[in-house]
Amino acid sequence: MQKKNAIILFSGGLDSTTCLAIAKAQGFSCYALSFLYGQKHHVEIQHAKSIAAKSGVLFHKVLALPLDDIGGSSLTDSKSAVPDFKDHADIPNTYVPARNTIFLSFALAWGEVVNAYDIFIGANYLDYSGYPDCRPDYLKAFEKMAMLGTKTGPGGRSFKIHAPLLQMHKKEIICTGMDLGVDYSQTISCYRVDNNGRACGQCDSCVYRKKGFSEAGVLDPTSYYN
Amino acid sequence: MQKKNAIILFSGGLDSTTCLAIAKAQGFSCYALSFLYGQKHHVEIQHAKSIAAKSGVLFHKVLALPLDDIGGSSLTDSKSAVPDFKDHADIPNTYVPARNTIFLSFALAWGEVVNAYDIFIGANYLDYSGYPDCRPDYLKAFEKMAMLGTKTGPGGRSFKIHAPLLQMHKKEIICTGMDLGVDYSQTISCYRVDNNGRACGQCDSCVYRKKGFSEAGVLDPTSYYN
Repeated sequence: MQKKNAIILFSGGLDSTTCLAIAKAQGFSCYALSFLYGQKHHVEIQHAKSIAAKSGVLFHKVLALPLDDIGGSSLTDSKSAVPDFKDHADIPNTYVPARNTIFLSFALAWGEVVNAYDIFIGANYLDYSGYPDCRPDYLKAFEKMAMLGTKTGPGGRSFKIHAPLLQMHKKEIICTGMDLGVDYSQTISCYRVDNNGRACGQCDSCVYRKKGFSEAGVLDPTSYYN
Repeated sequence: MQKKNAIILFSGGLDSTTCLAIAKAQGFSCYALSFLYGQKHHVEIQHAKSIAAKSGVLFHKVLALPLDDIGGSSLTDSKSAVPDFKDHADIPNTYVPARNTIFLSFALAWGEVVNAYDIFIGANYLDYSGYPDCRPDYLKAFEKMAMLGTKTGPGGRSFKIHAPLLQMHKKEIICTGMDLGVDYSQTISCYRVDNNGRACGQCDSCVYRKKGFSEAGVLDPTSYYN
């Protein structure tokens, strides 16, 4: 039987790299999709390219999107600093308005063209920063909207959104990836990478990553400057 | 009372120009949003700029999106010809995969930033080409998804998608626009505009437009080369 195609939203970070490994392990032929969206930490795309090249994906597409022209996030706005981690109830300023909706929408478009009606996203609802577009109900609603707003595939198929990390802690994500042979030294999670490619160790993304490696009892391969 | 802000998806065509006039008549302060998405008929954006400049919108943003890199439509693919109108049951090849979902997603992002939780789209379900992303159920599902996947606005507001043309025939759209003072000579609908800015008269979009003017008993101000 021919393998089914899947689109993997792929940033080159810990979560999406694990997600790619899961999709491969589930037998999908993978189309990786990355975005240069004006993020300050655009070095992640170099990591994504390098990982994709070694991972046997069918195709890796990198699209440029002008989210920095829209603003509203410290990840894209030069006038707003990416903060240190804070254990907060509010949505932090690293939230990028409608980012997952935009990324998933491009996945629908590409999915229709390459006949990939399975879309993987590394969204995570436990060790995460409170972003609304990582909530389980949101992903369900997106799937329903996609069913109604796209051309159905062969056999009347409609899109399925896979978020295999949704209910995992970072520790479990890392253990899952290790079992699947992920080389986490290739991934990058930091929002404030320095010119030598080292991570800050103090932004939301770094703090969750460090905690995950520590709890998993796995040596964190990341090089930190703090 | 301060006016509420709205985002208007705005192509410079007949429908979205009418939609802008309706939003203004309803008392909204309007942010017009257009896209250069690799469409062959990108001249529409010149019309959009010109109309926006005369219409008193608060801001007109034009974003570049690489939908031509994804393909799957005769509107963006140089190897696929835009066909003449055909009274079909199938979705024609002028359908652009997930286009409205992508455009609406960018409207959410900008809407969050400028506090515009009302989004207007000129989608039309009667005199239209069978695109799945113009169906009423799709727009309802998009609204629900948006409610779950974005940051709520002041007072807990969530996004409302307005599609005032959804159940109108082209004739009614034109009559509504005429009542609101729309100058349709400024708008362009054709997918195959020639170098002199004239419309083909035979693509889906032209055929619906011509029929609308004819049924409305209004002189069609469009210059056709066929």
